[in-house]
Amino acid sequence: MNHFTSVHDVDDPLGLLRLAQECKENPLKFNELGKGKTLGMLFYNSSLRTRMSTELAAYNLGMRVISMNVGDSWNMEFEDGVVMNSDKAEHIREGAAVMSQYCDILGVRSFPSLTDRDRDYSDYIISKFKQHARVPIVSLEGSTVHPLQSLTDWLTIEQFKTVKRPKVVLSWAPHPKALPQSVPNSFVEWMKITDYDFVITHPEGYELAESFTEGVKIEYDQDKAFEGADFIYAKNWSSYLDYGKILSMDPNWTISAKKMALTNQAKFMHCLPVRRNQVVMDEVIDSANSIVIEEAKNRTFAAMAVLKTLLEK
Amino acid sequence: MNHFTSVHDVDDPLGLLRLAQECKENPLKFNELGKGKTLGMLFYNSSLRTRMSTELAAYNLGMRVISMNVGDSWNMEFEDGVVMNSDKAEHIREGAAVMSQYCDILGVRSFPSLTDRDRDYSDYIISKFKQHARVPIVSLEGSTVHPLQSLTDWLTIEQFKTVKRPKVVLSWAPHPKALPQSVPNSFVEWMKITDYDFVITHPEGYELAESFTEGVKIEYDQDKAFEGADFIYAKNWSSYLDYGKILSMDPNWTISAKKMALTNQAKFMHCLPVRRNQVVMDEVIDSANSIVIEEAKNRTFAAMAVLKTLLEK
Amino acid sequence: MNHFTSVHDVDDPLGLLRLAQECKENPLKFNELGKGKTLGMLFYNSSLRTRMSTELAAYNLGMRVISMNVGDSWNMEFEDGVVMNSDKAEHIREGAAVMSQYCDILGVRSFPSLTDRDRDYSDYIISKFKQHARVPIVSLEGSTVHPLQSLTDWLTIEQFKTVKRPKVVLSWAPHPKALPQSVPNSFVEWMKITDYDFVITHPEGYELAESFTEGVKIEYDQDKAFEGADFIYAKNWSSYLDYGKILSMDPNWTISAKKMALTNQAKFMHCLPVRRNQVVMDEVIDSANSIVIEEAKNRTFAAMAVLKTLLEK
Repeated sequence: MNHFTSVHDVDDPLGLLRLAQECKENPLKFNELGKGKTLGMLFYNSSLRTRMSTELAAYNLGMRVISMNVGDSWNMEFEDGVVMNSDKAEHIREGAAVMSQYCDILGVRSFPSLTDRDRDYSDYIISKFKQHARVPIVSLEGSTVHPLQSLTDWLTIEQFKTVKRPKVVLSWAPHPKALPQSVPNSFVEWMKITDYDFVITHPEGYELAESFTEGVKIEYDQDKAFEGADFIYAKNWSSYLDYGKILSMDPNWTISAKKMALTNQAKFMHCLPVRRNQVVMDEVIDSANSIVIEEAKNRTFAAMAVLKTLLEK
Repeated sequence: MNHFTSVHDVDDPLGLLRLAQECKENPLKFNELGKGKTLGMLFYNSSLRTRMSTELAAYNLGMRVISMNVGDSWNMEFEDGVVMNSDKAEHIREGAAVMSQYCDILGVRSFPSLTDRDRDYSDYIISKFKQHARVPIVSLEGSTVHPLQSLTDWLTIEQFKTVKRPKVVLSWAPHPKALPQSVPNSFVEWMKITDYDFVITHPEGYELAESFTEGVKIEYDQDKAFEGADFIYAKNWSSYLDYGKILSMDPNWTISAKKMALTNQAKFMHCLPVRRNQVVMDEVIDSANSIVIEEAKNRTFAAMAVLKTLLEK
Repeated sequence: MNHFTSVHDVDDPLGLLRLAQECKENPLKFNELGKGKTLGMLFYNSSLRTRMSTELAAYNLGMRVISMNVGDSWNMEFEDGVVMNSDKAEHIREGAAVMSQYCDILGVRSFPSLTDRDRDYSDYIISKFKQHARVPIVSLEGSTVHPLQSLTDWLTIEQFKTVKRPKVVLSWAPHPKALPQSVPNSFVEWMKITDYDFVITHPEGYELAESFTEGVKIEYDQDKAFEGADFIYAKNWSSYLDYGKILSMDPNWTISAKKMALTNQAKFMHCLPVRRNQVVMDEVIDSANSIVIEEAKNRTFAAMAVLKTLLEK
């Protein structure tokens, strides 16, 4: 594993999962491993869970952390060959190479534009960092996928599942703002490497990119999808086909107690932050079957497994 | 002590004071105590002393620190039951619970609105954090009180007092902007647990909330209040009665050498930052009797005593 | 050495260089030295290299780091005797003295106005910090000089030189924005303490202050200056004489392969960030003779030498 920017970077996903479980059992077990090593984190966007859990993961491994918002530094140019006479003072070629002199691992968060689909789906900024950095790059959520979240979600399902092959449902839900497809794309990618009974449900027009959903069951009837489900993974996303657009605010898709009653006493999951009474009703997220807080806790152990693997590379 | 958000959270204030004195004598005495523990700090407002001294206190105890401005993360909703379709992406119920997964103690700074008195005097945001966090909350200055400052002030008076029962005067002073009552409220609360000869002086209309000042001597004549004083604690605040309003800019209330000459060679104190030649004349703050810098230094040891007590809980 | 704000603060520049080389050989050699000591960093301006490398340097020495942007804290007043009724809440007298209570060394970055030359050339803000702080001040780039960069540059030339007395050329180059003279001023100051064959080249009107360039060879013909050069140090600066103005955007001054062909296979240096195809053509900065990344790496070791020397003071 040279980087961690999608499931495709991972040689041994099951090994990574087992390592995350080991980190959870004893968070300070490997706390000499990162001595004298530094994690750099660069945020193009807001972050609470990722910022805190990844920083904590690094500390648990004995690393130092240098965390920056893009505004602390220089606006970067990502295109090659341009005459740099705009507002961009530093080229990614220098930026990434220089940060690689100070840090042993670099984390980058960069959300999609939701206007330029091709660029977004090339995970443009994170790809450029991979290209020009001289150390491993960790995606702290890119414009296409959010693998730290998905590894966490897998870890969480393994923790809570009561049958060998649970039914896991990824359900679209309404939201007042246009959101990226990164979390659902990534969740699909990781679910495909499990043998779970995995179903996606969403209104028509909200189909994710086929490159992600190929071979995955899609059920447009949410009620039908929920039947017998062991896990409901709720998430809003904007349209991929009509790129970045909100096509529906239909409250019938909100995850309610009535909807959850259709399931096999399913656990409720969400990556957070979540809009209450839009994506999910209070009655569901506050219920005993809601595991969103434990899910967030698991972010630390997923990040530890990733950092440890990259440190040992 | 489960939290530290006002003097009322403290089981044994005198014990806490003694511990702060012990921390000052040997700042690294307890530097193994916080090993593997994390302090999270969330700032809704500017901070210099609190940010630096609390971070330093945590380091002296061997803790890790994750420090965030609110702008680094998501705008939070604090009201229950609302449909979250505004600009607030995360509910305090998740926000506080999630941060509790990563941090062993959470510090929060949140100033008052100075427009909604009832809400401000419920210490709204810090109270919500207390309600929904699963770890101890430390007020880094709330909308009603600033207990880390007041414990510091008590520590400082104990350090400099030359008589067993000094006369301590809290004096209002003019300032060009409307400021919170948090520092004076808190100072009053903590002075009331001492047996000092404590007096408050301010122009009419600047009465603090009776819930704080009940039983405390108020003297509207500043000159008379200063007579025989051993400590002058200067502070501006906006009106509590005509909430958040500036009622006076009277320069006669500025702390000058002439005013200080009325005292028993009193020490001059202020929580800082202070507007020179508005709140206090250069001649006073630059004099040998000014102990504002030592007072600021003591912030570290007050914070250490608080963090240590909460860690051992 | 009481501070590190220009070459004039350094008692033994050659000793400092040797120490930086020693730090590079073994970055963790002195990692017990700073135990329990704290570096505070205050940024008035953007920073990537300085922020990361100085933080890393402190960690390598075992120090803790508290890093702040000015916006995290209070707007500071630097003038004495004023009535503080503007937007400035804290006076440097308290600000610097208070930070000195929490930190063992303070770093400050503050760029020039480029409008008030006298004030800029007094290195106003950093000088005020030196005056009122009670601990050593490190310039993280002031309004006149950038000594951490220059010590790095010297270290880099020593690393790459192949003759005892290399020819080093500081060349002005075009840039779309008005930039400070701090880097070139500082580079000149440090080159003057070496016995290198040192030449400055720039268009007429771009003369640096005589206090810096006195005794240094200036060659207005860039081609002639480049002849036989072993190092080309490129940098844009705005005019000192017509203060802060851009007098030329002449692309003939851009560092191109054709220009580099005039040299003795010179190494290309720049402090970064650099505008590609304005200051330097891609063909040069991407060539084997470009040492800008190694130069950036050396920032860490220059900072380590400075911090170690100040810690041992």
